[in-house]
Amino acid sequence: MNFKMVFNTIGKVCNIEAILMILPVITCLIYREWSSLFAFLITMAILLALGTFLTLCLRPKDHIIFAKEGFTIVALVWLLVSAFGALPFVISGFIPSFVDAFFETVSGFTTTGASILDDVEALSHGMLFWRSFTHFIGGMGFLVFVMAVIPNLSDRSIHIMRAEMPGPVVGKIVPKAKDTAKILYLIYIVMTALEFVLLALGNMPIFDSIVLSFGTAGTGGFGIKADSIASYSPYCQWVIAVFMILFGINFNLYYLLLIKRFKPVFKSSELHCYFAVIAVASAAIAINTFKTLSLSIRESVFQVASIITTTGYSTVDFDKWPVLSKSVILVLMMLGACAGSTGGGLKVSRAAILIKTARREFKKLIHPHAINNVRFEDKTVEEETTAGIATYFGLYMVCILAVFLLISFEPFDIETNLSAAISCFNNIGPGLAKVGPSMSYSAYSNFTKLVLSAAMLLGRLEIYPLIIAFTPSTWLRK
Amino acid sequence: MNFKMVFNTIGKVCNIEAILMILPVITCLIYREWSSLFAFLITMAILLALGTFLTLCLRPKDHIIFAKEGFTIVALVWLLVSAFGALPFVISGFIPSFVDAFFETVSGFTTTGASILDDVEALSHGMLFWRSFTHFIGGMGFLVFVMAVIPNLSDRSIHIMRAEMPGPVVGKIVPKAKDTAKILYLIYIVMTALEFVLLALGNMPIFDSIVLSFGTAGTGGFGIKADSIASYSPYCQWVIAVFMILFGINFNLYYLLLIKRFKPVFKSSELHCYFAVIAVASAAIAINTFKTLSLSIRESVFQVASIITTTGYSTVDFDKWPVLSKSVILVLMMLGACAGSTGGGLKVSRAAILIKTARREFKKLIHPHAINNVRFEDKTVEEETTAGIATYFGLYMVCILAVFLLISFEPFDIETNLSAAISCFNNIGPGLAKVGPSMSYSAYSNFTKLVLSAAMLLGRLEIYPLIIAFTPSTWLRK
Repeated sequence: MNFKMVFNTIGKVCNIEAILMILPVITCLIYREWSSLFAFLITMAILLALGTFLTLCLRPKDHIIFAKEGFTIVALVWLLVSAFGALPFVISGFIPSFVDAFFETVSGFTTTGASILDDVEALSHGMLFWRSFTHFIGGMGFLVFVMAVIPNLSDRSIHIMRAEMPGPVVGKIVPKAKDTAKILYLIYIVMTALEFVLLALGNMPIFDSIVLSFGTAGTGGFGIKADSIASYSPYCQWVIAVFMILFGINFNLYYLLLIKRFKPVFKSSELHCYFAVIAVASAAIAINTFKTLSLSIRESVFQVASIITTTGYSTVDFDKWPVLSKSVILVLMMLGACAGSTGGGLKVSRAAILIKTARREFKKLIHPHAINNVRFEDKTVEEETTAGIATYFGLYMVCILAVFLLISFEPFDIETNLSAAISCFNNIGPGLAKVGPSMSYSAYSNFTKLVLSAAMLLGRLEIYPLIIAFTPSTWLRK
Repeated sequence: MNFKMVFNTIGKVCNIEAILMILPVITCLIYREWSSLFAFLITMAILLALGTFLTLCLRPKDHIIFAKEGFTIVALVWLLVSAFGALPFVISGFIPSFVDAFFETVSGFTTTGASILDDVEALSHGMLFWRSFTHFIGGMGFLVFVMAVIPNLSDRSIHIMRAEMPGPVVGKIVPKAKDTAKILYLIYIVMTALEFVLLALGNMPIFDSIVLSFGTAGTGGFGIKADSIASYSPYCQWVIAVFMILFGINFNLYYLLLIKRFKPVFKSSELHCYFAVIAVASAAIAINTFKTLSLSIRESVFQVASIITTTGYSTVDFDKWPVLSKSVILVLMMLGACAGSTGGGLKVSRAAILIKTARREFKKLIHPHAINNVRFEDKTVEEETTAGIATYFGLYMVCILAVFLLISFEPFDIETNLSAAISCFNNIGPGLAKVGPSMSYSAYSNFTKLVLSAAMLLGRLEIYPLIIAFTPSTWLRK
């Protein structure tokens, strides 16, 4: 284990988190929120002190890292960044309990959007900005950002990228990991800016347009109003719905569009599945909750887009929908968006490959000696990948059931606890019943909030990094 | 496709079902229930007519069958046997609706024990006997029985056995499939007889002792009283609890005990896991529902044994338990008993291998080039098996979610529908809330009852046979 390299990288991340806090500081200055400003400045000072200490005192002899270091760096960075990111809420007194603030910040960075705030409108602008900004940072990945901006990271950093980027297969779209990170972030920022402009053109206040764009881009879902997106105009709701869907698409496809390779984009099986699921689920819910044509379509498309991309915004309290629509929502929560997007969940491509692998099993049972390969995106999927995906799914269900059992000490009903476990693990945000869109997670105990924080991190990082980082053998020197 | 062989076998099964109805006929004679007697006699006549027609008119040229025929025979047999088994209920007028009677009979043969009867005590003794006897027949498998009693089935019939016996790996314990079937049935009958004797010694009425032993042996769970097992003495409840656990153990282990090979039995990993789960779950529930020591232990051990073995008897309305205990029950519903037992569910060995495969994935991520095999029961599990189990689990979850969505048209809550889907698919019987132990499935619509019947069959036959039998390509002649 290259300890020095691990902690040196963590030091760099601390410095970068401090620098990123300049944006909420500016917000505090604009709105003259002095206590919030003070809280951010103290946090920045702590981060810079720690960051400087780690980067100066722990100079690694070599920059070589392997998979083990990659996973450990990612796990530790996400934990620390969340812990420090929670400080402004605590210091300013807006969220006095550290556990609550930690839950809220983990929920932000993992782009979950689950909140312990019963009255979100009581927060200062600076705090609201920071809260939504964590979505934006966490969406594409903190370390992918670090890779994009920090010079002289060795190209072995693909191990970090693999550990942080969701989806079954992470490839570099250009030969260097660093350039890949830059391109991805560029696409990400341009799309976010575009959404901001379109929202602002729809007469949404500038502040709202910025933070809601952050929440959409990271597929996070923190709103700044008690009713989430319900009070905005139909135009703005449609803009957000479309951008949620866009941010749920594999970013590699946008790169292919940029370099004018249209064919693989239009032939992408994952994209076809993704659109098909959105269409079918929206239609089913629109019919099941029918009021008027335009309203029902808007509400159902918005909610399906919000849940499948794991954003978690809402324009309607879907907990009050008929049970069929609620059940569709519950199943969509597990599916998730496309691999390589900012969305969470199982991912469409995993589900598709899983079903194709199962179909292959049928064929194998009938013709045991015939060669049957699973094909996806016009390529043969290697046996190792199909087996890995199936195993991941098993692990995924075990984690959700474990979280469900661990939070069952609460005096809530099964629907609440199960939907909370599914929603947090898949980084959605709202659940059903007592954690429905109009409720918050505040009624849960501190123990449950910590379990759900762990669930959000496990879900965002796709299980492996956290487990590997906290396995004793990882820390033993060879 | 060897059509003649398929339909010839089905003919034999019809004849055997008619012969098996002699037992309820005797019951009707003893209790002088003439209308029930009449219903059984008519059904027997229909079965014998069809059976004679199929066996005489469709004489196969060869007895060779492949996996495809094996799966098809199993799927068709289970459907037909259930459809004809439902006739006595309809003809006698005890269950006037055919869909209801079909649901009840599928529930019987698949050893689910879910009932549409609101007042089970209104049934005649003959009907109660037949209802519980279907559990006994279905527990070890209808076709395994056929193999044990019918001469000159070719040894290719292992394909039938594989398709009907649950669990990830089905092996012959002696070289010939036919002898294996005989040994398994012998152990099964002796154990059932032993339970009957112990119950009768506890002053349970003879009739009750017989039918409840059938229900335990097949891990079925049909009771003959409104409160299931609650009104019997603590002694009888303990006898049933212990036998439920015994019938949830791999029958191969009993064979090994018989031939005095003790070591592999005591070292069996699946058995250790099975007992460990029972102990931990019982302890958790006993503490969570504590009343007095002996009562709490009896209630929790009984219910955990009943659910993990997928029997479904109850001595207490566990739907009224605190949410932690209910959540434990819900998770146990999916785990199921040991492979090669009469229990349903995912099976302990599948779950154990799945978790070991996941642990292997962790190691592979850290040391990509090291050789890491999954070991279980002191043997290396082949890659094909681990991949197959992981894929099966994916398929299993997809089926449960599909059933859950299909029955969501009902105006019930999510807890009811989800527990109904899980309970039926895993062949348990009772669910939670509106399908809890003190309720029945009668309030569901005919459509939902048929969906749940399909779920019970899919779960009992472990998905593949039914899907393969209803794939058009299976029926095309090459």
